[in-house]
Amino acid sequence: MVTVITVDIGGTSMRAAAYSPESLQPLIRNKIPTTSAGEPVFERLIGLIQSVWPKDGEVRAISTASAGPLDPNTGFVFDAPNIPGWKNFPLGDKLKEVFPVPIFLGNDANLAALGEWKYGAGVGHQNLIYLTISTGIGGGIICNDLLLEGSQGLAAELGHITVLPDGPLCSCGKQGHLEAISSGPAIVNYVRQMLISGETSKLDLKEDFNAYDVSRAAKEGDQLAIRGYARAGKFLGQALASFIHILNPSIIIFGGGVSQSGALLFDPMFEKLNADIMHSSYLEGLKFAPAMLGDDAGLLGALALAHRKLQIT
Amino acid sequence: MVTVITVDIGGTSMRAAAYSPESLQPLIRNKIPTTSAGEPVFERLIGLIQSVWPKDGEVRAISTASAGPLDPNTGFVFDAPNIPGWKNFPLGDKLKEVFPVPIFLGNDANLAALGEWKYGAGVGHQNLIYLTISTGIGGGIICNDLLLEGSQGLAAELGHITVLPDGPLCSCGKQGHLEAISSGPAIVNYVRQMLISGETSKLDLKEDFNAYDVSRAAKEGDQLAIRGYARAGKFLGQALASFIHILNPSIIIFGGGVSQSGALLFDPMFEKLNADIMHSSYLEGLKFAPAMLGDDAGLLGALALAHRKLQIT
Repeated sequence: MVTVITVDIGGTSMRAAAYSPESLQPLIRNKIPTTSAGEPVFERLIGLIQSVWPKDGEVRAISTASAGPLDPNTGFVFDAPNIPGWKNFPLGDKLKEVFPVPIFLGNDANLAALGEWKYGAGVGHQNLIYLTISTGIGGGIICNDLLLEGSQGLAAELGHITVLPDGPLCSCGKQGHLEAISSGPAIVNYVRQMLISGETSKLDLKEDFNAYDVSRAAKEGDQLAIRGYARAGKFLGQALASFIHILNPSIIIFGGGVSQSGALLFDPMFEKLNADIMHSSYLEGLKFAPAMLGDDAGLLGALALAHRKLQIT
Repeated sequence: MVTVITVDIGGTSMRAAAYSPESLQPLIRNKIPTTSAGEPVFERLIGLIQSVWPKDGEVRAISTASAGPLDPNTGFVFDAPNIPGWKNFPLGDKLKEVFPVPIFLGNDANLAALGEWKYGAGVGHQNLIYLTISTGIGGGIICNDLLLEGSQGLAAELGHITVLPDGPLCSCGKQGHLEAISSGPAIVNYVRQMLISGETSKLDLKEDFNAYDVSRAAKEGDQLAIRGYARAGKFLGQALASFIHILNPSIIIFGGGVSQSGALLFDPMFEKLNADIMHSSYLEGLKFAPAMLGDDAGLLGALALAHRKLQIT
């Protein structure tokens, strides 16, 4: 049987699965932590792929979603901040040395967008924005039914647009990016800064709380925690208005843990979006939806990429 | 002979031309002021089209570039601020009533981008950004060799992204947009504000100077005028970094009068762009070029649209 192997490489865990062309249910799947003391990530990745390799039959391709930024044409990972040693790493070529089959590669958020468009919340939409809000803020864009990759595959870095000049430092080293205000760690940082400056809250500066803890405190009425999410939501709404003016999508799909905090984030977001949009036409018929593919977004996005490249419909 | 008529409707003047399929040189062209006392703009437009209508032969289509925003699918102009009476104006349907041929329609900046991609500075580029900086700031985007129109044709409003929250009021009624800081009138407004607050300059508050006057003063060493352009350039650079992170183009093409002010605008722009770009890969091989089609951008963009729609290569 002809099989496509798909891989999803994240900062925390790596997944792999083998699919027959007929089904979205994998024949076999496996998941391991990305890092383990003493073992290079690439060695672990090879073992993971071998663990789902079919005993009989032919592998048509290995299709890989990876943390980026990366060049899908050359298979070059420029800088995966959460993966030790993957700076200017020729992932495509190295996989090809070990596995003599076609290798396809894409940025994880881009492929999640492609997966949601083909199999998930975005089915039927020709123009969509996918936004994942968790440790970072990643994006994927479909325009005219095509993945928007740009000239080097570096497009759709939606977390890295400037929303507040001279604002907080971003993980990428620049200032005032959306990710530096509306990601999970950014919400925590803001609350910690306010606590240091003397504000009171259920949250304790001496404890190592995360964005989920902040959302729990907010739901219990903690004013500082509520404000932390409101600030994140407000800048998210401002950024969405800019994205919509640039891309005019018919659906915006939200993934990532922070996007599951509900009204805490989305009420201020919609308030600011409605205030900032330049013409109501942009919002007429525009849908907002949660991602449907969950943990499988990367694997199914890589599958959609393989099907497109192999011209399997 | 089979002819395509193209029209370019701007706030100041309207142009029309008739093209044979074989040539970019029009068979005939005409230009009139958009408004004239007592005569509705649409009546003037009909007369203009009739003035270039071929005496013998067949008209395949009328292709129209218009100030927007507009919906190219329905032919509906939502709001053309410089054209009296064109608010929710069904331009496509009204043209079709008078001229029983296919009517194609596009936003003027979008079609200028399409024209530059097919006939001008963008030939050979699959992913480009076109930015026109004059009275307003308009944009057009080509991705994967396709015009990025979005779900309702409202995409690429690149002048209307927020670069400074709570910043100056924009022509669209919102605050802190790129157009409100880096367009010609925005540069003039900034200089006038500084003069009111007591700064000294060659420029005189009592006179009705424009952005060109400010650039001339700057070239003569006037510090306030230099700062007006530097501020516009700095926010332009910030916006470009965001556009590049979203779209990863291989060329950015500048049109419009303000973009002809040279180093005054572009030196601060490049300084800020280089500071704000999150990875040097985005700038490797990225070209910056002036628009090549000049006053013909709208007419030739509309021609490119007609050729695409009629499948003339």
